[in-house]
Amino acid sequence: MTTLGGAGRETGHAARLKIRGGAHRLPTAGLAPGYVQGNLAVLPASLAADFHRFCHQNPKPCPLLAASEPGDPRLPTLGADLDIRTDVPRYRVWRHGELVEEVDDLKKVWRDDLVAFVLGCSFSFEEALIENGLELRHISCGSNVPMYRTSIQTAPAGPFHGPMVVSMRPFKPADAIRAVQVTSRFPSVHGAPVHLGKPEMIGIEDIAKPDYGDAVPVRDDELPVFWACGVTPQSVIATVKPEFSITHAPGYMLVTDLLNARLAVL
Amino acid sequence: MTTLGGAGRETGHAARLKIRGGAHRLPTAGLAPGYVQGNLAVLPASLAADFHRFCHQNPKPCPLLAASEPGDPRLPTLGADLDIRTDVPRYRVWRHGELVEEVDDLKKVWRDDLVAFVLGCSFSFEEALIENGLELRHISCGSNVPMYRTSIQTAPAGPFHGPMVVSMRPFKPADAIRAVQVTSRFPSVHGAPVHLGKPEMIGIEDIAKPDYGDAVPVRDDELPVFWACGVTPQSVIATVKPEFSITHAPGYMLVTDLLNARLAVL
Repeated sequence: MTTLGGAGRETGHAARLKIRGGAHRLPTAGLAPGYVQGNLAVLPASLAADFHRFCHQNPKPCPLLAASEPGDPRLPTLGADLDIRTDVPRYRVWRHGELVEEVDDLKKVWRDDLVAFVLGCSFSFEEALIENGLELRHISCGSNVPMYRTSIQTAPAGPFHGPMVVSMRPFKPADAIRAVQVTSRFPSVHGAPVHLGKPEMIGIEDIAKPDYGDAVPVRDDELPVFWACGVTPQSVIATVKPEFSITHAPGYMLVTDLLNARLAVL
Repeated sequence: MTTLGGAGRETGHAARLKIRGGAHRLPTAGLAPGYVQGNLAVLPASLAADFHRFCHQNPKPCPLLAASEPGDPRLPTLGADLDIRTDVPRYRVWRHGELVEEVDDLKKVWRDDLVAFVLGCSFSFEEALIENGLELRHISCGSNVPMYRTSIQTAPAGPFHGPMVVSMRPFKPADAIRAVQVTSRFPSVHGAPVHLGKPEMIGIEDIAKPDYGDAVPVRDDELPVFWACGVTPQSVIATVKPEFSITHAPGYMLVTDLLNARLAVL
């Protein structure tokens, strides 16, 4: 197995080995540049079919990269040796919708009926935006991207339903147009924006008061541009209050062997 | 030669034969659906090199489809039998920047030093927007698209310089995002928008007062979306006041044998 990718950079596999060995217990932003990172949601098999259908019906907030066999911790399409019980640096364990603990691995809590879902994350398209010379305000500010619950409803499936959550990045109009072009190439990691300008049209009353993350300045010559956000499935799962579920801790993502560049459809 | 294209529709060639024979002396909108129509600019060879370079430097307002050999009225890449002296339903003849006459053909005014330039036109991308189910407000209103001189300067070449002219179509934000995607596929007919929202940023003081064409309503839940416009080269040529030049009359375009669908780069 290689540990260095193109231009001598760390591979996704190498990053995952460090995490698995306990040598990396930090957020994964900046780890293994160029490799796809994903959001994790683990549910009992009794809810898996509904959640899978929910993802299929809501591909922009819930771009499914892989789902495991029930009880099987492997996700070979994301990494030949990937073990979902050990390869995320921090997990959150939920019971009946309540956060009960944060853990470093799932060895003690794994069950034979669990299904792991890995969803695309904005790191992939943000990397493409940065490569296009676009400034990401929340990165310039050293803060978390601002996220908002919207009046856009997801398409329900079984018990799963609720509002779409969006992330916001401000751009000058010409850069907003470029951002539409760049992110349209990446439908498996949220794809094109769902809205731009006029936050009130999607139920956002105050752009300075995000529901998650941190506010960032939007200048007079900029438009707020909104992308469907991976917090949507987490928020939807929380409302269902499954008797048991697991997610990654915010910012502590699953690093895969997939290359961001290979996600581009064009 | 065929006269009917796909789905039994009139071909560009058949439309051109009608025009050449004098049977069509009307604007060309709606003629030969699916076929590329172009803007015409004819200049003396002494100005041709500068104008060609101007187009190359300003591909969004001046997307060059073809340029003739000096004195040669044929444009075989746009139509095997195309004769630029007879195949446009109405021409304007200009001397020293003054419109001196409108004519049905160029047989009496053609010169051995003239070079014909054909530039892509918004009809092509508008057809793609309509096929995507988007409403074009100026078409709904039965009026001409509103156009504005902007504070965006073209890149000069020789004597050719001046502001970019843009056309404006209002869309709801999600439709504006789709319009960016659709028109990005057609760089040879103006391509993606150059601006959206915030008209004051490109020097437009009153969206209700276009410099050319007709005003259209922009609703509270819509953004004005601006594309580089083929009026730009006409306006730039007018400021140079060449001793002699020819253009098509507004709306009386050159119909070619090219298919709009084949202009899509993806």
